Amino acid sequence: MKQMNDIPEKMMALMCCAPHDYQYREVAVPHINEDEILVQVEACGICAGDMKSYKGAAMFWGGGVLPPWNDVPCVAGHEFIGVVAAIGDNAAQKHGLALGDRAIAEQIVPCWECRFCRSGKHWMCEKANIHGHQKIVADGGMARYMKYGSRDVVHKVSKTIEAQHAAMLEPLSCSVHTIERAQIGFEDIVVVAGLGPIGLCKLQLAKLKNPKLLIGIDNNEKRLNVAKKLGADIVLNFQKTDAVDEVLKLSDGYGCDIYIHNSGHPSGVIQGLKMLRKLGRFVEFSVFSAETSVDWSIIGDRKELDIVGSHISGLYGYPVAIDFLERGIINVEDIVTHTFPLEKWQDAFALAEKGVESIKVVLIP
Amino acid sequence: MKQMNDIPEKMMALMCCAPHDYQYREVAVPHINEDEILVQVEACGICAGDMKSYKGAAMFWGGGVLPPWNDVPCVAGHEFIGVVAAIGDNAAQKHGLALGDRAIAEQIVPCWECRFCRSGKHWMCEKANIHGHQKIVADGGMARYMKYGSRDVVHKVSKTIEAQHAAMLEPLSCSVHTIERAQIGFEDIVVVAGLGPIGLCKLQLAKLKNPKLLIGIDNNEKRLNVAKKLGADIVLNFQKTDAVDEVLKLSDGYGCDIYIHNSGHPSGVIQGLKMLRKLGRFVEFSVFSAETSVDWSIIGDRKELDIVGSHISGLYGYPVAIDFLERGIINVEDIVTHTFPLEKWQDAFALAEKGVESIKVVLIP
Amino acid sequence: MKQMNDIPEKMMALMCCAPHDYQYREVAVPHINEDEILVQVEACGICAGDMKSYKGAAMFWGGGVLPPWNDVPCVAGHEFIGVVAAIGDNAAQKHGLALGDRAIAEQIVPCWECRFCRSGKHWMCEKANIHGHQKIVADGGMARYMKYGSRDVVHKVSKTIEAQHAAMLEPLSCSVHTIERAQIGFEDIVVVAGLGPIGLCKLQLAKLKNPKLLIGIDNNEKRLNVAKKLGADIVLNFQKTDAVDEVLKLSDGYGCDIYIHNSGHPSGVIQGLKMLRKLGRFVEFSVFSAETSVDWSIIGDRKELDIVGSHISGLYGYPVAIDFLERGIINVEDIVTHTFPLEKWQDAFALAEKGVESIKVVLIP
Amino acid sequence: MKQMNDIPEKMMALMCCAPHDYQYREVAVPHINEDEILVQVEACGICAGDMKSYKGAAMFWGGGVLPPWNDVPCVAGHEFIGVVAAIGDNAAQKHGLALGDRAIAEQIVPCWECRFCRSGKHWMCEKANIHGHQKIVADGGMARYMKYGSRDVVHKVSKTIEAQHAAMLEPLSCSVHTIERAQIGFEDIVVVAGLGPIGLCKLQLAKLKNPKLLIGIDNNEKRLNVAKKLGADIVLNFQKTDAVDEVLKLSDGYGCDIYIHNSGHPSGVIQGLKMLRKLGRFVEFSVFSAETSVDWSIIGDRKELDIVGSHISGLYGYPVAIDFLERGIINVEDIVTHTFPLEKWQDAFALAEKGVESIKVVLIP
Repeated sequence: MKQMNDIPEKMMALMCCAPHDYQYREVAVPHINEDEILVQVEACGICAGDMKSYKGAAMFWGGGVLPPWNDVPCVAGHEFIGVVAAIGDNAAQKHGLALGDRAIAEQIVPCWECRFCRSGKHWMCEKANIHGHQKIVADGGMARYMKYGSRDVVHKVSKTIEAQHAAMLEPLSCSVHTIERAQIGFEDIVVVAGLGPIGLCKLQLAKLKNPKLLIGIDNNEKRLNVAKKLGADIVLNFQKTDAVDEVLKLSDGYGCDIYIHNSGHPSGVIQGLKMLRKLGRFVEFSVFSAETSVDWSIIGDRKELDIVGSHISGLYGYPVAIDFLERGIINVEDIVTHTFPLEKWQDAFALAEKGVESIKVVLIP
Repeated sequence: MKQMNDIPEKMMALMCCAPHDYQYREVAVPHINEDEILVQVEACGICAGDMKSYKGAAMFWGGGVLPPWNDVPCVAGHEFIGVVAAIGDNAAQKHGLALGDRAIAEQIVPCWECRFCRSGKHWMCEKANIHGHQKIVADGGMARYMKYGSRDVVHKVSKTIEAQHAAMLEPLSCSVHTIERAQIGFEDIVVVAGLGPIGLCKLQLAKLKNPKLLIGIDNNEKRLNVAKKLGADIVLNFQKTDAVDEVLKLSDGYGCDIYIHNSGHPSGVIQGLKMLRKLGRFVEFSVFSAETSVDWSIIGDRKELDIVGSHISGLYGYPVAIDFLERGIINVEDIVTHTFPLEKWQDAFALAEKGVESIKVVLIP
Repeated sequence: MKQMNDIPEKMMALMCCAPHDYQYREVAVPHINEDEILVQVEACGICAGDMKSYKGAAMFWGGGVLPPWNDVPCVAGHEFIGVVAAIGDNAAQKHGLALGDRAIAEQIVPCWECRFCRSGKHWMCEKANIHGHQKIVADGGMARYMKYGSRDVVHKVSKTIEAQHAAMLEPLSCSVHTIERAQIGFEDIVVVAGLGPIGLCKLQLAKLKNPKLLIGIDNNEKRLNVAKKLGADIVLNFQKTDAVDEVLKLSDGYGCDIYIHNSGHPSGVIQGLKMLRKLGRFVEFSVFSAETSVDWSIIGDRKELDIVGSHISGLYGYPVAIDFLERGIINVEDIVTHTFPLEKWQDAFALAEKGVESIKVVLIP
Repeated sequence: MKQMNDIPEKMMALMCCAPHDYQYREVAVPHINEDEILVQVEACGICAGDMKSYKGAAMFWGGGVLPPWNDVPCVAGHEFIGVVAAIGDNAAQKHGLALGDRAIAEQIVPCWECRFCRSGKHWMCEKANIHGHQKIVADGGMARYMKYGSRDVVHKVSKTIEAQHAAMLEPLSCSVHTIERAQIGFEDIVVVAGLGPIGLCKLQLAKLKNPKLLIGIDNNEKRLNVAKKLGADIVLNFQKTDAVDEVLKLSDGYGCDIYIHNSGHPSGVIQGLKMLRKLGRFVEFSVFSAETSVDWSIIGDRKELDIVGSHISGLYGYPVAIDFLERGIINVEDIVTHTFPLEKWQDAFALAEKGVESIKVVLIP
């Protein structure tokens, strides 16, 4: 075991306790064993999912087709980046890490025993413990310190990236997996719907596949402008124009080939089903706070669509995201618009939820 | 041109005119040119879709995400089989057919000009004219005679099959395509939900892939018994048992690998989303008469599903269906439970709609 | 640790030492720790690969594009089945096994550290230690006892199967993976070339996919007759007929859709390249003892083929093989033609190599 | 019918007659009907395949696994671009073309009747008539005028591209299809072996997929320099360095993920089989003039490779190539190094064959 000599016993953390009940309070700094790592958190982004969890969405607390999933009280936050403050000898050898190195753990803590973990699909681990959502097993990064356990998947990250930008590695890794699921070809017209932080990552990644035409859709002019700057050939504000009609016009009346949905709004699903061509591909990434009501005849009988879900980072999300940020191929500078010290979390959450001026809001513990 | 010498000028036909307005009346027998074929219809099945069209579903008359599609008045019926009564010289050469041969046209009349027709996806023709739904261009088989046009895809069929069984070729061809889309492996637990005529075809085709376990679900005991006879390892009556719970038990708690949905009921969608394992495959074939309301978070974030639609027969549906019926590999005898003369169409529709005693009801013009 | 009370210190084993140098001699019975299992071997088949290793093929001893792979002296044999004679407590819990249970280890001993092991491709482990080929790490089953180590993948097997038939689980598991790689559809004409034990397994598995036409090719009439009995629609003796010409005739001149090659002879490759249709699929499983010389223009420019290799069992080979033998879906009775006591290994190898009267020869230690 | 008023009766053309027998002589200008187009050829590139045909390779004249394919005497040349000099009314309407428009026909003249043409695979037409190789049916572009027939697939091309660069559309279209077949992901190490004109196109297209690392291999320093300029991260001269060893070092000893082979030399095949990782992907595009002798055990048993062939342009090759040249995304300026008037074809062929100073040599009729 090696450790920095200034690690305190207590720290401040933002605890997820219940819908509408998040508490900023003092907790113990985690202890680690020889297989584990303690990092000092440099930054932790606020995800749209954090907002939906805060507001009580079924995705987190159960309802409808979804069983409950949050296990509280738990330190919130899965978009973290940290520096090794203490490390067990086994962990040091396994991960090739030393004190002071910057390192990221994947958001999921795989069980390594279920059929998914045993067949190379660890991101779909049946237990689905994700940092920031399951207490103790998988506490999150909205705290001064955080533990990467023996089952965590840990990657070294260059310090050339600014901390608040490195906090984008998690959403960027998810975006990488979504784009893999999208199977973009040179001949495709691709729509990215919902241009929040993760939508803007996907837009850039889609651009790196060089499709025939890349269209971004949102109703926030600031985000549409950023999308344009980051590579969208065309941007559409669905509140100012009939986006379905525009996409049909741009595609000789057929509709787009691929629709990548990140908005979390049922209207974004409906829009996609309408603007996709027959035999088109719909990639669903969102976390929703409401049900979507639609005639499923369009999926089979009318259009024979492929609707493929995308959950977190897949196999290659983190390595690719780290590679791309280190090579400067992806722009996150224009996405991370605001940082707040952790104790100002309420202001940060409020700004993130409004989502008008800000794109990504990052907390600095 | 060659033709039988007893073809009349007029015939009786069942015309689809509007929701709740189908008319059995006299119309002209179609004239054909040198590129066309006139068949004397031997039999024409009643599809669940015919019932939904009759009752006004959005799939046929428009609404929600779906534009209108029926073009009326049109001779109804797409599950037809016929014998060549007249044939143009070009058609005879092109299809290798002679007077008196039994022949089937695919249900769709491709335009051969849209991007789908030009790229080997004729079953997804942008125009989507299907016999029994678009007047003149694609009249159907609920009449004494019927025209196969120059753009039709026509297959010769052995006369060893009984006529009312040959009327099953269309639903069987659709089933073949659905099973292709399902990608069944030896290691898979497969659920076929909805055991009407097409569900029972799919069940048998799924059995021909020899999966680990094949489960049929319905609420009609008669159909469940037929399913058991036709190859289901297990059948579940969702009204008598908790089908989701049973499937979870049969799969070590993970859920089934593949769910093939034919019921046309929103509850069948919900059931499938619940009983599929993570990374599972949902094949959607149904025509619905109502919208399905569900939290789409389960598609992406929770389970990373593949939901793939299936429309009609694909490339190989008809050749495989003909081959399988000719070789006697698929049992349709237990599916075609009733036949009616065409003039008794109202009784036939009523029996088919009730769907308690009957499975497939076939009209004989 | 639990163990039978009659385990000796020494046992007889067949050691692979060098090309043409296999020795039947006394060696120590392996010791096991709490993570390991000792089985008493019930039976161990002789693979065609064993013969090629014995005769010095580059595949085993290096040459051309292939680095050496055997690590000797090593107990030979990878087609084993055994009964638990001793078991560590951890192993008992991990695998759910008790003394006296029948169990099989997969032929490969994955390292669990390379990129393939970490991404669910353990059968392609970079280290490629396979029982019967790497001393100590992966000794084989041609001995009275054998160790399944802590990194082995172990499956319980029903005792309802006769021991010499259970020895077919390994080749059957390889066959399962090959058939997965073949992607057989209902519309396909499938050729299985080379009808040794593994070819006859693949033929039966291909039949379980119900293709349009299933053709077996070999030059041994006995094996062709067994193939016919086990499901081949047509069998061709390439020494008595022009097999390429026959297959072209059976396919309207296009060629077969899928060619599954097991013969290990360059002539089998040439035959496949000739008889496949354009855009056809060639599955290569063989271990060769000579190079194949052919114009690769046919792969790309002439036919745009998919030539896909298949190595051992894939992810699902063993579970499916066990399931199919337990359900009696696959016939191995007609494949296992001879058994010999282990000390008669020379007679057994001679009979297996001649391959005229025998199909699979199994050793009983 | 519309036509320019200066079309002569006779023209000079380069005729492919036999191995080593190409003749520059006077022939009739083709006549066209209402379904056809006559173009005045602006430029026509010399393909490596032209050189191999000239020198008698089995690919063109038969031998080994390959039946003969050239049908002579035939106007040579498949890398043409032209301007409409006469056009039938039906052709004008079908293709949306007028006198003076620049237009390209795909190199293949599909029969539209074989199973490939009928299923959206027209580039694999069973008849395989390709401009420049089958007399009358598919004469080529090394002549003043050339006919695009009723079965040709014709695309309009912007005149903003210089003629000698537009002659690169055919090789670029083939490259597009090869890259589709390569299935490049962000995490892949990709090798392009053989950096002639088509290798340099593939290199650029591979770059447009943004893989982790892109490596070009050749033995010509000039071409390696161009590759570096056009996007290769690393270039290797296989005569100056051990390329297999270098690629292994660059990939932690595993080997590259994808190997794209264009060299036409058996040594390029061997190199690829050695430097690919297990489960890697080998894309074979070359036309060879000699057989490749190698132990096929490496394909199945050792590495479980996917070796996928690639023939001409696929479905999307031409539209994508035209789009990319019009948008200036692909650089062909550095590839087309020399132009010659058609009558100097011998000098042009000699320069192209030597291949030291030149990359692509284009003839101007």
